[in-house]
Amino acid sequence: MLKGHRTWEFVQKPVILSTGTVGGPFEGNGAIAEDFDLLHSDLWLNQDSYEKAHRVLLEEACQRAIEKAQIQQEQVQFFLGGDLINQITPTSFALRTLEIPYLGLFGACSTSMEGLALAAFIVNAKGADYLLTGASSHNAAVEKQFRYPTEYGGQKPPTAQWTVTGAGVALLSDSGEGPRVTSATVGRVIDMGLTDPFNMGGAMAPAAVDTIESHLKERGIQPSYYDLIVTGDLGHIGHEIAFDLLKKHGIQISEEQFQDCGMMIYREGQPVLAGASGAGCSATVVYGHLLNRMKKGEFKRMLVVATGALLSPVSFQQGETIPCIAHAVSIEFDGRQ
Amino acid sequence: MLKGHRTWEFVQKPVILSTGTVGGPFEGNGAIAEDFDLLHSDLWLNQDSYEKAHRVLLEEACQRAIEKAQIQQEQVQFFLGGDLINQITPTSFALRTLEIPYLGLFGACSTSMEGLALAAFIVNAKGADYLLTGASSHNAAVEKQFRYPTEYGGQKPPTAQWTVTGAGVALLSDSGEGPRVTSATVGRVIDMGLTDPFNMGGAMAPAAVDTIESHLKERGIQPSYYDLIVTGDLGHIGHEIAFDLLKKHGIQISEEQFQDCGMMIYREGQPVLAGASGAGCSATVVYGHLLNRMKKGEFKRMLVVATGALLSPVSFQQGETIPCIAHAVSIEFDGRQ
Repeated sequence: MLKGHRTWEFVQKPVILSTGTVGGPFEGNGAIAEDFDLLHSDLWLNQDSYEKAHRVLLEEACQRAIEKAQIQQEQVQFFLGGDLINQITPTSFALRTLEIPYLGLFGACSTSMEGLALAAFIVNAKGADYLLTGASSHNAAVEKQFRYPTEYGGQKPPTAQWTVTGAGVALLSDSGEGPRVTSATVGRVIDMGLTDPFNMGGAMAPAAVDTIESHLKERGIQPSYYDLIVTGDLGHIGHEIAFDLLKKHGIQISEEQFQDCGMMIYREGQPVLAGASGAGCSATVVYGHLLNRMKKGEFKRMLVVATGALLSPVSFQQGETIPCIAHAVSIEFDGRQ
Repeated sequence: MLKGHRTWEFVQKPVILSTGTVGGPFEGNGAIAEDFDLLHSDLWLNQDSYEKAHRVLLEEACQRAIEKAQIQQEQVQFFLGGDLINQITPTSFALRTLEIPYLGLFGACSTSMEGLALAAFIVNAKGADYLLTGASSHNAAVEKQFRYPTEYGGQKPPTAQWTVTGAGVALLSDSGEGPRVTSATVGRVIDMGLTDPFNMGGAMAPAAVDTIESHLKERGIQPSYYDLIVTGDLGHIGHEIAFDLLKKHGIQISEEQFQDCGMMIYREGQPVLAGASGAGCSATVVYGHLLNRMKKGEFKRMLVVATGALLSPVSFQQGETIPCIAHAVSIEFDGRQ
């Protein structure tokens, strides 16, 4: 199975049988609203805290994926995933509801592809027949924890990004029809010394480039192998930096071919500054919008490079720079549905 | 590879080539001090914050394991692990230093065996030649975050436990000599409705029992298969509850055979109330003390059941009960060294 030092190729090509994507009101007004399975009109989801609402997003996304695959919840052997909240409680509490054996992950906004990489590895090696993986975030819960409660109306610089309220999950199996997971490259921590927590895109861009470069090298392929190389949540600022860095490293890639989930989810005019972010960003955009486009035949081979900033408010207060990571997973679909 | 619904059997029996264990002053005065590779005489480790000291514990444990295995750091393909601190920053910052591709985990105090289960799965399926996994905690960093800064001198009830200052890691490979990882059972979230964050042992005991029961059933073995079934950090209170519950469930097990890492690490008379806890507890006790005893031939088959309480201060403040989990991994050694 091993191809390169940190890249796995999945010979069995695990299948994404179904996905579940749930979003909030801001996502419902966004550019890809029709790609969500379920959209909520307010941030509370009938709960008495944002953290509990966050939990419900993930529960609902898992339930949708299970329903769509037409299997029983008891058939799902494992859930792998996480979120940004301290001790990833929204995910753990959702798994209390779902009662699926659970492996908690933390990779900040890279969690979606950390989970898909491990999930595909497990299915590929016949460690599960059915397995769920995913990530989620909730704008108000995340803002409260990392910055200020949204009710304060705090101002942000134009480099800041808007945390997605949403959960995206994928149900994997070793048989069936659907897009297939063909390889994964695990990220390493890259820290270029940036300290501004309002410019995460800039901090994360070098990690994305490092992982893309290793992925192409270890698989022995050219960037042209992929119809789309899509980063997780670099936003406008980080996307430009990453594009420039790739070119400097001699990686030939076009603007059409290199895109970012954080620039897809919201509509022009929504006040999201440099774009979207959050663990739910790449999870909902990939498992909703991008897989839908794949199934329509718009493209066949996609490399998803989910980026994460591994800081905390405490590490920032203690003068630390921002360590970042990016995990890449390739998804391919030959058009049969 | 699949045996039961949530149990993996590892046909290749990945080898624990070496381990690294680092502790603090309280552990240096404890019952198994001689089993640590390195002990620090103060909690600061020459750093200017407890979180940074926490990071150093893990860096040193990894370095020791790599040295003992006589390999180069560049040969280690992945690190899997985590800690209890918000956004697991001590682990992520240690991986910035170590530059090893990194998959962050969160399973609270069950992280040690969550990591070993996944690490053994990856090595067993030929996903890595060398891989590190481990967990760590720091008493003062954890107390500050979950309860009060230790400088406040806060009082605790006798059901509370003492968070270990320590890091324990294992270096796995598919070849070589040493104890072998033979199977793993992934936990599910069990919540019996307990709400007292000063009685984690009591809250976690049912999760340990659930996992032990599933493990024995899915592997089709009797408890007598194991010389030792050792839980992570139930402490005196949780240990008694778990022992009673196992008997009630008809699982025949003796007091000598059923033990707890949280009752091994400190000496009689150390003011640790109900025993030890923390992600570093099972990690240091298993990868230090217990593997040393195995290598001396004291026992051949051990099931480690690391327990975790998946709450946060916020979830407690919002009136939530304590969701718990336990992951079990079997380690066997035939005496050849």
